[in-house]
Amino acid sequence: MKKINVGIIGFGTVGSGVVKILEGRSSLLSRRSGVSINIKYVCDADLKSKRPVKAKNAILTKDAYKIINDPEIDIVIELMGGIHPAKEFIIAAMKKGKHIVTANKALLAQEGKQIFKVAEECGVDIYFEASAVAGVPIIKALREGFAGDKIEVILGIVNGTCNFILTKMTKDGASFEAALKDAQLKGYAESNPALDINGVDSAHKLVLLTLLSFGRFVKLSDISVEGITDISANDIDYAKDFGYVIKLLAIAKLSGGKLEVRVAPTLLPKDHLLANVWDVYNAVLVRADMAGGVLFNGKGAGSFAAASAVVSDIVDVARNVNSGAVRRLPEYYKNQSDAVLRKISEIESRYYIRFSVIDKPGVLAKISWVLGKHSISIASVVQKERKLAKVVPVVIMTHEAKENELCSALKEIDKLNVIKAKTVAIRVEK
Amino acid sequence: MKKINVGIIGFGTVGSGVVKILEGRSSLLSRRSGVSINIKYVCDADLKSKRPVKAKNAILTKDAYKIINDPEIDIVIELMGGIHPAKEFIIAAMKKGKHIVTANKALLAQEGKQIFKVAEECGVDIYFEASAVAGVPIIKALREGFAGDKIEVILGIVNGTCNFILTKMTKDGASFEAALKDAQLKGYAESNPALDINGVDSAHKLVLLTLLSFGRFVKLSDISVEGITDISANDIDYAKDFGYVIKLLAIAKLSGGKLEVRVAPTLLPKDHLLANVWDVYNAVLVRADMAGGVLFNGKGAGSFAAASAVVSDIVDVARNVNSGAVRRLPEYYKNQSDAVLRKISEIESRYYIRFSVIDKPGVLAKISWVLGKHSISIASVVQKERKLAKVVPVVIMTHEAKENELCSALKEIDKLNVIKAKTVAIRVEK
Repeated sequence: MKKINVGIIGFGTVGSGVVKILEGRSSLLSRRSGVSINIKYVCDADLKSKRPVKAKNAILTKDAYKIINDPEIDIVIELMGGIHPAKEFIIAAMKKGKHIVTANKALLAQEGKQIFKVAEECGVDIYFEASAVAGVPIIKALREGFAGDKIEVILGIVNGTCNFILTKMTKDGASFEAALKDAQLKGYAESNPALDINGVDSAHKLVLLTLLSFGRFVKLSDISVEGITDISANDIDYAKDFGYVIKLLAIAKLSGGKLEVRVAPTLLPKDHLLANVWDVYNAVLVRADMAGGVLFNGKGAGSFAAASAVVSDIVDVARNVNSGAVRRLPEYYKNQSDAVLRKISEIESRYYIRFSVIDKPGVLAKISWVLGKHSISIASVVQKERKLAKVVPVVIMTHEAKENELCSALKEIDKLNVIKAKTVAIRVEK
Repeated sequence: MKKINVGIIGFGTVGSGVVKILEGRSSLLSRRSGVSINIKYVCDADLKSKRPVKAKNAILTKDAYKIINDPEIDIVIELMGGIHPAKEFIIAAMKKGKHIVTANKALLAQEGKQIFKVAEECGVDIYFEASAVAGVPIIKALREGFAGDKIEVILGIVNGTCNFILTKMTKDGASFEAALKDAQLKGYAESNPALDINGVDSAHKLVLLTLLSFGRFVKLSDISVEGITDISANDIDYAKDFGYVIKLLAIAKLSGGKLEVRVAPTLLPKDHLLANVWDVYNAVLVRADMAGGVLFNGKGAGSFAAASAVVSDIVDVARNVNSGAVRRLPEYYKNQSDAVLRKISEIESRYYIRFSVIDKPGVLAKISWVLGKHSISIASVVQKERKLAKVVPVVIMTHEAKENELCSALKEIDKLNVIKAKTVAIRVEK
């Protein structure tokens, strides 16, 4: 049986999970892959900290180039994260003919175009199942499972931290701050949670899902990204009254030759397939023109869920190496679609709008007059009586309207002297 | 670019969908597969009926051996269904070195062991994504996506007809007969719906899901199969009162070195991931020890959903042929587990039990005394007052109990003179 040597760069949470599976299940993995997978090196800047596993037969090193320059290494597994020096390590390894397995979504979203190009030039495989919804083989499904389909829509809940926070706010009535603190206590959120809650982590994953679904490498800067920091408990309550829940969605849609790619908190009807994905769970709903709607739902992160994805990639690449089928799949980034990007101002949507108004006669008339002027038609209104407050919320659900008209209308409305705080608008998805 | 010639046997609903995709998307498929896929033949016993597509460049034939014996054919696509002569065609084609793509779950469930063995001996690929939950790449996911995992449980709603009928009964209060008639009117059920409603179709799919998940080829005769014909509107109502819905589940579980494989109507808590899969939709919940719980949800059947699965298989095999990586995946049936099958009498479960009793004092005492004697402990009881009926239902939810004890208890109870009809027991899944 052929032996495949791997070197792991990054011996943290995910790295430890990968070592545990590769070492603990070597005979099972041999049966499944047809080869013997051997961890030759584990590399980390910190070799002193206690880990839950030992890499018994591996050489521990602080020097990634020991792995990169070893001609016996077949696959380099990059689990260190961050842009530099991960990018340099991966490129150097590919130039030495190593195949790559990585979980580094930020790196691929930012530098993927160059990295995939080098992989092609070097004739090596690069696999990245753990980079989005780690517990679910969604990367493989999008790359291989819909080969006869044109994908029309991708809707994803792809950040577990945000989904946990929104779950706490929705189910327990927690404030954003309390929910975030809880997420940090439980280890679901980093001490600096910015990338999660501002939507950028979701945007990283969306770049990769869009690439695989639409054959189009979208720049991060082309994605309209809104996080969940402005979502208030009020909005969640009002949404509930209308029969909706609020989720942070990563969205990519192709229609009329234009591709729309964005991350934003979104109202979903409470019986929507994605509306009942709670806590740290992630899910992606794919609408393909032949297969129909397909939901993938599972763990987005965690040591073993991510390690499961990394190991399935290692086995996949090992099968390629064993059967001489390296670069069996055509490169994603070259499978370009000619779709133009749709600007966020050009999209159409239904909207949930919350106005903060002075409680006096004629206010609703003023607001609805401005909305009407911009061809925004009202589907329903809720104004609750609040005896003690002088400023009261008026909540409106609109029919389908144009984003640019909505923005103009809200700009105009926010200048009215009856409006006492910035108006909140959240899109509604079917 | 290399040309791959395929021959399609079976020009029915799915065959027409496959022709439509292969002909209509040839350049897209070339980009995705790296080869040019050409339909050289389409074979069907009936060449006269109108189809929604024409196989423009294909040779139409009634003789499958024209395809099987043509040295230019790379892949034979079997979409005729049934055991004979599909089995003979597939085996003859493999012996001529052709790769196989099939949607034939009944054939693989019944004769798969022999067919996979011939594929191995002949060094050809056999792919069957369309054989279960066609719209969802679940076969690929189980075969490749959980390579580092041990799968613990598979729970599937894999028959769209049954799920449609149970949906009608649950949501609209329809009777079984009315719901079945509706399914037939909508084209969801065959005019002879026996294989669907008696659970056998689900068992066919379960054989394949079990093979891929547990490396074990279970005989159909080893699967305990119950259909939905005995489910009454009453049971659905009572289940709802307790907070449950009734679904026909295909179940495979590995625990304590024993593998439990069965098909049965089952109570699921109403917030269970599978409880909200309605109409003709299918879903499979996989619990893997590393990845965690993963739900796959999509269309189970239909011309284009099935064709989508068939085409993704064709592209997969075409990539193998193109990269010289035929038989890149180790054979499923050889990846045997040493788990013993658990007999249905050995399983443990919670139960929903509906007794039909005479409405007089002391009845519940008698029933609960027998249950207690068999170590079956009662979690809750509902007995609704029915003034006009002399026979009333008493519904009990039990705690975890042994199946053999339950059977003994019910045998004893059904002999009591206060019991007026056969007692109904349905298992409850967490």
